[in-house]
Formats: sequence, C-alpha cells, structure tokens
Amino acid sequence: MSIFHNSHDLSYRNPFGAVITNTVITIHLDSSLDNIDQAYFCWRKEGLEVCDRITMEVVELNQDITRFAARYQAPDYVGLVWYYFMIEHDGMTTCYGNNKQCYGGEGEENNHPTPYQITVYNQEYAPPAWLQGKVIYQIFVDRFYNGNNNGTIVHPKKNSVLHSHWDNDPVYIRGENGEILTWDFFGGNLLGIIKKLPYLSKLGIDIIYLNPIFEAPSNHKYDTGDYHQIDEMFGTTKTFECLFHEAKKYNIWIILDGVFSHTGSDSKYFNKDGNYPTLGAYQSTDSPFYSWYRFSQHPDEYDCWWGIDTLPNVNEMDATFIDFFIENEDSIINYWHRLGVKGWRLDVADELPDEFIKKLKKQLRKKDPDAILIGEVWEDASNKISYDERREYLLGQELDSVTNYVFRDIAIAFLLGEISASDVHVRLVSMNENYPKAHFFSLMNLIGTHDTPRILSILTNVSEEGTKNENGINRLKALSVWQLLFPGVPCIYYGDEAGVVGIEEPLNRRTYPWGKENDQLLDWYKKIISIQKKYDVFQIGDWNSFNHGKHVYGFKRTTETQIATVLISNSSDNQRIRLSENSESLVNVLTGCKYKSINGDVAITIRANEVLVLIS
Amino acid sequence: MSIFHNSHDLSYRNPFGAVITNTVITIHLDSSLDNIDQAYFCWRKEGLEVCDRITMEVVELNQDITRFAARYQAPDYVGLVWYYFMIEHDGMTTCYGNNKQCYGGEGEENNHPTPYQITVYNQEYAPPAWLQGKVIYQIFVDRFYNGNNNGTIVHPKKNSVLHSHWDNDPVYIRGENGEILTWDFFGGNLLGIIKKLPYLSKLGIDIIYLNPIFEAPSNHKYDTGDYHQIDEMFGTTKTFECLFHEAKKYNIWIILDGVFSHTGSDSKYFNKDGNYPTLGAYQSTDSPFYSWYRFSQHPDEYDCWWGIDTLPNVNEMDATFIDFFIENEDSIINYWHRLGVKGWRLDVADELPDEFIKKLKKQLRKKDPDAILIGEVWEDASNKISYDERREYLLGQELDSVTNYVFRDIAIAFLLGEISASDVHVRLVSMNENYPKAHFFSLMNLIGTHDTPRILSILTNVSEEGTKNENGINRLKALSVWQLLFPGVPCIYYGDEAGVVGIEEPLNRRTYPWGKENDQLLDWYKKIISIQKKYDVFQIGDWNSFNHGKHVYGFKRTTETQIATVLISNSSDNQRIRLSENSESLVNVLTGCKYKSINGDVAITIRANEVLVLIS
Repeated sequence: MSIFHNSHDLSYRNPFGAVITNTVITIHLDSSLDNIDQAYFCWRKEGLEVCDRITMEVVELNQDITRFAARYQAPDYVGLVWYYFMIEHDGMTTCYGNNKQCYGGEGEENNHPTPYQITVYNQEYAPPAWLQGKVIYQIFVDRFYNGNNNGTIVHPKKNSVLHSHWDNDPVYIRGENGEILTWDFFGGNLLGIIKKLPYLSKLGIDIIYLNPIFEAPSNHKYDTGDYHQIDEMFGTTKTFECLFHEAKKYNIWIILDGVFSHTGSDSKYFNKDGNYPTLGAYQSTDSPFYSWYRFSQHPDEYDCWWGIDTLPNVNEMDATFIDFFIENEDSIINYWHRLGVKGWRLDVADELPDEFIKKLKKQLRKKDPDAILIGEVWEDASNKISYDERREYLLGQELDSVTNYVFRDIAIAFLLGEISASDVHVRLVSMNENYPKAHFFSLMNLIGTHDTPRILSILTNVSEEGTKNENGINRLKALSVWQLLFPGVPCIYYGDEAGVVGIEEPLNRRTYPWGKENDQLLDWYKKIISIQKKYDVFQIGDWNSFNHGKHVYGFKRTTETQIATVLISNSSDNQRIRLSENSESLVNVLTGCKYKSINGDVAITIRANEVLVLIS
Repeated sequence: MSIFHNSHDLSYRNPFGAVITNTVITIHLDSSLDNIDQAYFCWRKEGLEVCDRITMEVVELNQDITRFAARYQAPDYVGLVWYYFMIEHDGMTTCYGNNKQCYGGEGEENNHPTPYQITVYNQEYAPPAWLQGKVIYQIFVDRFYNGNNNGTIVHPKKNSVLHSHWDNDPVYIRGENGEILTWDFFGGNLLGIIKKLPYLSKLGIDIIYLNPIFEAPSNHKYDTGDYHQIDEMFGTTKTFECLFHEAKKYNIWIILDGVFSHTGSDSKYFNKDGNYPTLGAYQSTDSPFYSWYRFSQHPDEYDCWWGIDTLPNVNEMDATFIDFFIENEDSIINYWHRLGVKGWRLDVADELPDEFIKKLKKQLRKKDPDAILIGEVWEDASNKISYDERREYLLGQELDSVTNYVFRDIAIAFLLGEISASDVHVRLVSMNENYPKAHFFSLMNLIGTHDTPRILSILTNVSEEGTKNENGINRLKALSVWQLLFPGVPCIYYGDEAGVVGIEEPLNRRTYPWGKENDQLLDWYKKIISIQKKYDVFQIGDWNSFNHGKHVYGFKRTTETQIATVLISNSSDNQRIRLSENSESLVNVLTGCKYKSINGDVAITIRANEVLVLIS
C-alpha cells in the first residue's frame, strides 16, 4: 500500500480514540509514494461546512517509506471531527481515508474519501464510576413472576384476557388492520419481583431494569396512561417503595423505563377514550395538555409513534411538558427519584430532542450525582443521526450509557460464523475508539431484549417450528462469558439465563420458567457472574482486543495487579493457538485447567464453540 | 299464458304437497293452445333413469281453455318424484314445468323443463307430536352464565386464555395460517344454566339445545375429546344429571349437539397429542380406533373436516364406530339417554351417511319413542344433495326436524326489503309443499345460531363499525313474532332476546349480557312466547299463507275453534289493507286494539315494520 494510517494504532494516532475538548492529538501517516510534494491532514468539525488542513511534517525517511506527522488540537467545544489525508505527488493529488467499512463515519463530498472520526467530548457529566461492571437484569414485569397468593390476578384490564397457565405461549390478538384488539396478561407483578429478590441476588444482579410499570392498558405499558401511578395489576406506589427497600437490602438498584416521546391515547393527558376524569388533549383544545401534542386536525388527526394511533407523540420541548416531566419540584423525574428510582432507560432516545435529554440529565444529576441515564439507541451512538441531526448523546451532557445492540450484532454474527474474528476485532476497537472511554466502560451490553428474538433461539438457529443446532447452549455459554466479562454493564434479559426460547414477538416475551429452568445454563450464568465479581479486573480492567486467525476472538482485561484473557472460538473444530505471556502459567477459571508457559509461550487448544477465561 | 299448472293450488294438485307412499294424486292442467292432440303428465322417480308418462284426459272445455286431468299413484317406496307436462299440438311438442325459481328441484336433461317435486315418504318414525310448537333455546355454554361462586373459572385448558370480564369481546387468536393458536374462554358452565333455569322458564322455554358439552380443547367443543365426559370447565356428569333433574321441574328438556362426523385430533380416539392414556389411531395402526379414521398415509395424512387438521373425519359406517356410538348397550346414544338427554341436534348431518342416521334414529326411538333427532341442514332438506346423493332425511326413517335456515333467509330478505311479500308467500308454500306435513310442523325455525351473525345486527344493517338503522328493534320484534307463531319449533339463540349484537365470528358468540339486557326486547319475547303458549292455535293450528301486495306478508293459523292472523309489513310507510273475516271483530293481541268487521271486511292500517297478531 502506498499510503497508510491506522487510527487504532497509537503510533499513528495518539491519544487513542475519543478525546476531551482541546486535547492535542499527534497524527502520523506513512507513504511509499515517490516525489511527494506535500502531505496534508484535512479535518472538518461537524457542523462547519469547510474543511481545514494542516501541512504534515516529514519526521522519518526510511528506505521507501516517508513518515509524516501533524499535531492537531481538538476544538474547544464538543462534537465530531472528521479527518482524512491528502498527498500531492507527481503533479497529482491522492486522497486517503478510512477504509474500515464498519466505521460509522459517513462519506464527505464525492471527491473525498470516507473520513476518520474523532469524538470530542467534555466531562460535564461523566458516567458515574459505580456503574462500571454492574450486572443489570431486565424484567418485563407481566412475565417474570406473580407474587400474589395462589397466583391470583388482580385488577385485570377491561377487554383483556388472562392466560390460563403460567407456561402458556403469549399471543397477539389482532384485528384486520394488525391493531391489537385485546391484550393478554400472565399476571407478573412487583410483588413477584420482591419475592424473587433472593434469586436475583444469588444470580449476582446489581441493578434491575424494569420495562414500563406505569398505568397503561397494554401488557408492555409503553402506552402510558398515568406517569404517577404504578399499574394496578403490577402493584401500588407502596409496592414499589417496598421493592426499592427490599432490593436495597440486597444492594440492588432499580431503574425504570422512561417513555417520554409519546403517551398512550388512553391516558390522563390525551384521554381519547374518556376513561380519565381529566380534560384530555383529545377532548378539548382547552385541555391543559393540548400543547403537548401535535394535531393536524383536532381531535382525530394527530402525530403518533410509527403511525400507531394509540401512541400519540408529544412536543417534548413544550414548556408545560418539560415542567411536568423534569423541572417542577414534583416532576415525574423528581417524584420517582424520591421513591428510590436510581435512573432511567430512555425509551426511543432518538425521538427525544438533545435539549430535552440535557435538561433531564441536569435535573437527574442535581437530585443524585449517581443517578444513571441510559438511552435506547440501536446503532453507534457516537455518530448517530436522527431526524437529520447528529446526536450528542455521549458528548458529556446527555447519556451515561446506551443499549449496546452493536455489541450484540457483532457477537452473534461471529458465533454464527458470519464474520471472522478479525472483523470482530476491528469493529469492537472502532466502537472503543468512537465512544468516550468512560462511556465505553458503561455501555449496557446486551444480547437480547423484549425487542429481539431470544438469544438461545438465535444461537441454535432454531425456528419456532424447530430445526435446531445442538451447539446453541455452548454458543450461549461462550456469548454470556463474552458479554459478562466485557467492559461495560452487562444486561441480562430475564429468562435468557434459564434457557427461554422464542423467535417472533410476542414469543420472545414468554414467562420465566420457574421450576423448569435449564439448570446447566443457569448454573453457568451464576458461575460467570461470580467470576466477574470475584476478579475486579472484569469490572474495571483496561481492555485490549485481538484475534487469532479467523476463528478465535479474544480480549484481555488488565489492572496493575492482574491480567485476564478471554478467548472465544466460533470454529466447529479444535483450534490450537499460542499466547505470549509473561507469567509462568495460566488457569482457565471456568474449568480449573492449567496451562504452562514455555519460554513465554502458552500453547492452548480451544474446542468447538468453547470459551476460555485465563488468569495468570 | 298458454299452459298452466299450480302445484300450490288444490284444484291443480290434490292432495297438496308431500304424500305418503301409494297415495293417489289428482293432477290438473289448463291450456289455451289450439289444436291439441294430446297432453301428458311426465314423471320420473328419483333414482330411475327413465321418465314415464300418463296421457291426460280432457275434463273440461271452457271457451279457449282446455282442462286436462291425470290420476297419478305415488310409488310404494319413499323418495322424490319429479314431474312436468308435455303437450302435442299443431304438429309440435311444448313442455311445461315449474317456473317458480325458488323450488329446490333441479333441471332434468336440457330439453326438459324444471320439474315439480312430489316428496313421497312413509310414517315409520313420524316426528313426535309433543314437539310441535315447543320453544327451544340454544346455549353456547361458555358464553351463557358462569354459575360458580365469584365467577371463578375452574380447570382452565392448557394454553388457553380467560377473559378478564364477562362483557369482553370474544376473540380469535390465530397463527399465520389462520389456525387457532389459543382458545379464549369466559367461563360459562352447566351450573350457570341450572341457576338460570328460572329465567328460561319465565321466558317460556320448553327445550334447551346445548352446543357441544363433551370434553374438548376448544371453546365451541366441536372437536370432541371424549364423548363420555362433560368438559370439566362445564361441569361433571353429576352436574349434567342435576341440570336434567332441575330442568324437569320446569318441564324443560335437554337436547345435545351430536358431533359424529369427526372427532378432535386431541381425543381419546385419535390422540394425536398423546394427552390421553389410550392408544389412539394417530399413534398406532394397532389402535382399536384405527378403523374409525381415513389415513392416506399414517399418521400424518388423514381426511379431516374442511381441511382442519384438528378435526379428523370418521368412517361412520365402520362397525366398531356404530357399536360405540349407537348399538352397544353402553353406546354414546344409550349412555346419554340414560342420563336424561331427550334428543340430539346432529351436527353437519350432510356429512353423515343416511344409513348411519337411520341406525341412530332406530336406536333412539327404541329407547324413547319421544326422543327427537334434528339435523343440521342449511338448505331445503327434502331435496338436499350431498356428496352426489339425494338425502333421505325426511322420508320417514331419519330426522324429525332440521335447522330451518331457509325460513331465516326468507324472513330476513323480506324484512330488509330484498324480496316482496309475494316471493315470501311462494317460497314458504313451496317449503310446506316439499316437506311432509308433520315435518313442516316440527321444523326448528331459527333466525340466528352460533354460525350466523346476530339477528339484531343484521336487521339494523349494522357493521361492527356501526352504521345503524333504528328500525332494527322493530324489525326484530316483527321477525320474532313471525318465528314464534309460525308452524314448527322456534329456536332462540341465547341472547338474541336480550339484544346481543355481533357480525363476524366470534363476535356473534358474545356473552349473555346479564343485568344489561335490552329490556324492551326481552319483555317483547316474553310476551310473544306467552301468547304462543296461551293460544294453542299457534302450536298446532293449520297454516295458510298469503300476501297483500308487495309489503305485507301474512299467515293464518286455524283450529276448529280459532283463527289467528299474523301480518308483517316490511314497508317504511303505513300500509292499508282489507281482510275478509267471518267474525264480527278482531283483536290485535299485541296491543289490545280492536278492529270491527263491516260486511265481512276488516280495514287495517299497518305501520312501518309493524307486526299484527289478530284473533277473532
């Protein structure tokens, strides 16, 4: 190659990755081109139309290779910086950009190459340090556990159906146009979670993330009816307080799902069905909530989420809306903070204006410097564009973390043999590069949620009808280790640890199989979490990524006192690799198996779909 | 017209209608053709290929009209006879047949006209006389009333859902291919019926027809699992015995839905899901039930009802099947007879071989000469063809009655203004003509069942979305009088009397609205049934049909001591008509209004959609 730069390599870009404002970055470039007149570091600050350039200095001439350097000082305000290189030689100009397809950065004008990204952030609100390495457990409340005596279901919704047995398949009951006619319920509730706290504690959970729990007609409750009320099927405010206090005894925090981009149409605020005593926006333009919504023609034509008319979208920047949710002393954020909520997962963060998230974050931190704010973002959150705007989620004033579906995509693709270990390496390092370090170490790493097929079904290549790959369990064992020992905050979707399966919604929301768990898998999860907790290297250790050939991906976690290596194979054969190690021997803490170092080399055989966790 | 015969008119065909074997029938024909050489009465016995003919005799010459006569003796065995006329004149042949399109008779070969039908039957098993004029009430058990304390639902099915409230809308929960994934239940049961016997008695019910009650996975229970067991959600054998005994106190009989053309796949006999301890036909070709079914390839390819694989069809003529259902001392028929069942409504009678129905009838009558057998037949049962065979339902050895959907079709079409009063007259007289008299007086006249939209919805022209005609209630009042005072056995589909609505299945199976009945309608039904019971003319009286113009249809019921006239208008205006009456005055028993006869004429005004019941 005639021009070379690798942003992942400190000898080409230093410091690595995202930087705080004003950081000076040293950039190197190599070229084997002849007759070079000049090399330029070309950069553009996101939001500015013009590109600027710095003439690079020749710092080394080594046989055929000319090495150039530039010192670039990041702007004094946050945002993205895009850069590429330009070399004038032989009377022509050659441009050089980022050839790693997996980068999120977009192409500039046609005659410019895909640029490299530098994320420039500040530390106004850094992610709280306590979050790193914590284990989250996501609960879809209706499906987790019914804590009532005899499994009684109280306060069932009008026009709903209740499942006859806890292990029934959930269903969608749709009308001709695909709309849900009737919601099905199993009867899980907050009391059920309270009763299962010993289970969650034994599993090693630190944080419970609850899917929405506020009053709402549906079983998923993303159609909020009243942000001040716990849905009466789930319990009462008192039950919630009890959950908070009981959980605290186990050092478990509770975070909620904040659904602020839309309400239910059947809500205190919109009140389309007239079920509430309030004057709703649907009912009258005089409603105190009228300005929250966007009517193109009152009352029947209004903006709604994905065209679903039970979910009217809101004007988040409406002053009364901001007061109600954020700024009033009794705002939703403050109200639930007082009742013990430790933070929020912001539903559809892409739909919320940056200014709204900033105000929310400010209020949250004012009340509790340790409160956390996680955004639902499905892509690389560092360069996400929504509604034509580059989002500022991670630049210092908004989110502490995002739902890391990107991790999930990469890991699944590798375990199913769709991408190679080197692809994994490059993509994960790119993620690390784009995210501010503290954010990378706070990412909510997930392998399944209520919005995805069950991970075990995916890894067994199983359809609902049933073709099945026996490696599924082994793959999940490998993936769970990867997830749980990776930098960040692993999040377990309830039941994944017990072998729950299901592809299509709502089968991915089956109940937790109390008494019918896959014990092999459950024991595995307990073991891995206990390892994660035992060795702080897995919570706070630095991270280095590597691969051995196509089929073995690995990473190291390191602290000053410990090095741990995780190796994952996606091969169907044994893989033999050599690790260079300073220590005399390594132990696979999963099996107790020891490996001796011979002249600094450790020879290791990894079996099909196996994972190793090696500690020196 | 140049040739004329009217089979409805005694002066053309005598006796009227269906005849017993060997009956001599006098046939007349009029013709205004010139130069007639010969007139023939041409007839063919169903089943014989050749037509026979009788040369008709000239009995009258009157100006331009020649009147011919023939005496035809019906065969000495049952079946249909088809006839038409042929006249040779002016060197050519003119044929003359039945020009009433509504006749069920089919065209003969192309060069012959549509023939007239003569039903020739015997009286081996005449319909039991006690049946005439009895009022039946059809109950879809899950939707009628839950008699358990606090509405508890016991023994819910695996993988089913239970409605949260009694007044929910029923739902279908379907998979991608339209199959039902999960059945919904409301919890109605036999105890509920027992508790509502006082209601049914006050309403004036004589017979309860229960939709299937035997053990089965679905809510409709047409997928029988065990013909010896009451479904445990509905109760036990003891509950059934209690229902029988309690009902008897109110002079109410119970008849059951006999689903004998198929079983459930999840049954003691087929046992596809292995839920029964028996060796099912699906499980092994050695199963004692293997010969009941028709496998094209064992076990997964088998004949089933309408292609629904949960409903495998049976070989009704299989010897073990006949033993099991009919002939063993402990056969299904005998078993339930001993427990008090007064008769059966045979599901999909068209699917049952004549020989099977005959055996069943024989057994039933052997046990109880008053037992009744009603067939589910949607068309004119006198000439119904199923699977290329002319059925013998009404010829003396099979059914006592059929589900009279033909009545429903005619009456609804009239009330919605789709056909005229004269059409109604001709079609009802044709029905009377084709059916043996005792059968005509035993027809199960219905205006709605679990297989049709709710009658009130139809009569209000209401879609589920809601355009509505305010005349619906008035039309239903008229139709209910028509149905309840018509010869035969009216059958009320539970809730129709209370104003239940619903178009599409399963919305036509909504729950009975206890406490939310349409009282106006309910009071009307009670009143009409009490009139039907008060005047025996409505139970056993002869029947004569007539119409006044397009918009007023009427019929008379007469005994030696009483004449009653029912008049029904489908007009949106007042209709003024004159009735010729021998009596001095008439009373409309619905209103108490009196009409004076002037010179034998009674002038009557009928308001829009009104019904009058006049008694001398």
